[in-house]
Amino acid sequence: MSAETTSPWTASVLTLYPEMFPGPLGLSLAGRALGEGVWRLEAVDIRDHAHDRHRSVDDAPAGGGPGMVMKADVVAEALDAALRPDDPRPRLLMSPRGRPLTQARVRALAAGPGVVVVCGRFEGVDERVIEARGLEEVSVGDVVLSGGEPAAIVLIDAVVRLLPGVMGKAESGMSESFEDDLLEYPHYTRPREWEGRAIPEVLLSGDHGRIARWRRAEAERITRERRPDLWAAYGARAANDE
Amino acid sequence: MSAETTSPWTASVLTLYPEMFPGPLGLSLAGRALGEGVWRLEAVDIRDHAHDRHRSVDDAPAGGGPGMVMKADVVAEALDAALRPDDPRPRLLMSPRGRPLTQARVRALAAGPGVVVVCGRFEGVDERVIEARGLEEVSVGDVVLSGGEPAAIVLIDAVVRLLPGVMGKAESGMSESFEDDLLEYPHYTRPREWEGRAIPEVLLSGDHGRIARWRRAEAERITRERRPDLWAAYGARAANDE
Repeated sequence: MSAETTSPWTASVLTLYPEMFPGPLGLSLAGRALGEGVWRLEAVDIRDHAHDRHRSVDDAPAGGGPGMVMKADVVAEALDAALRPDDPRPRLLMSPRGRPLTQARVRALAAGPGVVVVCGRFEGVDERVIEARGLEEVSVGDVVLSGGEPAAIVLIDAVVRLLPGVMGKAESGMSESFEDDLLEYPHYTRPREWEGRAIPEVLLSGDHGRIARWRRAEAERITRERRPDLWAAYGARAANDE
Repeated sequence: MSAETTSPWTASVLTLYPEMFPGPLGLSLAGRALGEGVWRLEAVDIRDHAHDRHRSVDDAPAGGGPGMVMKADVVAEALDAALRPDDPRPRLLMSPRGRPLTQARVRALAAGPGVVVVCGRFEGVDERVIEARGLEEVSVGDVVLSGGEPAAIVLIDAVVRLLPGVMGKAESGMSESFEDDLLEYPHYTRPREWEGRAIPEVLLSGDHGRIARWRRAEAERITRERRPDLWAAYGARAANDE
């Protein structure tokens, strides 16, 4: 394939609320990049693929219980219509049952051709379409949302900022949280004193070695205090590296 | 305070992109409830509280390094303007350095008067305003976003659906993920067979005891396979309950 015919990174979002997109993704960093053609966004209305005259997309759960379940046939048709022949893009279903999204996965998605994201609503999606179409359930945080759309916006925002040309050099975030399994150290900027609180002296010392050591120690302290899970993973990796 | 003067649950969001709100929160479940006055949303433009003629909100990090840091004085003024006298609402800063949001915390926020949410941008926010104004850093997932706004939308969506009168009885989600430390069991709905895949026989049996046991076993299997962390917490709690 020549460079001319290569498509930009493309997110296809299957949703019952296509008017939620681009939404926040149409502004700021992601929005500017969308306008410049660095990436593409396609919102597919699942309801356009309903069969009956009521355009039903859901039905009562087999076995009883509260809520409604999104129909396998309707979701499958919407998906089949959105996919290109041999579409290599991962097919994700935003769901609290999914494996938690990580920054490593975000980087992998940014290195690929794009993503197809199904936004679940109601009690959930018929399990058979998840199996039959190889949907991978992905979660952003251990919370229950009214639908997958806010989670899809989080996922796409996280990926798009890593696409080449989206962040400027100054924004390139070499010291970001999770890039090295640690949370980020504290930041300070002018004024030197504010409401009686001073910027730590070391940061004004001009001694780059001391500054780097202080930042590392602070990142380790914050990770240990707030995220024992990340801290344990970091310790295990450091031990392996030795 | 009489019932007449009680304000509805109110989210005040401090952001450099007020036009991102309500965005997706203006549609669907949350949007309907917003229109009905069940909750209120106030987007505060942090830039309105900048001091200089360039309306700067950020400056270079003390000690050097990439990116820019949001200024303590500007964020503090925006916050002070948004808070009411003796404002009892929690003050959150959406940040990848924060403690992960949980469904238990979402329930606690829904039981309170509202929330004040600061959306970080750039490399981060000057640590001194976090300390001086008692901001609690909260994260939705181990990913880095272009700003806190998509995370704020996730948080507010999760809380608003739990406010009284937002979900109908049918939607009331008695068997949701995380409500009992387990991920949700698989869902099925009509048709009985689709693309050669049948709804599991037990769900069509009409035997409510068998159905409940099958769903419990499936929820446990899925939690064990996908979330060893939740599974360990569930096992520890079950052992305590005995």
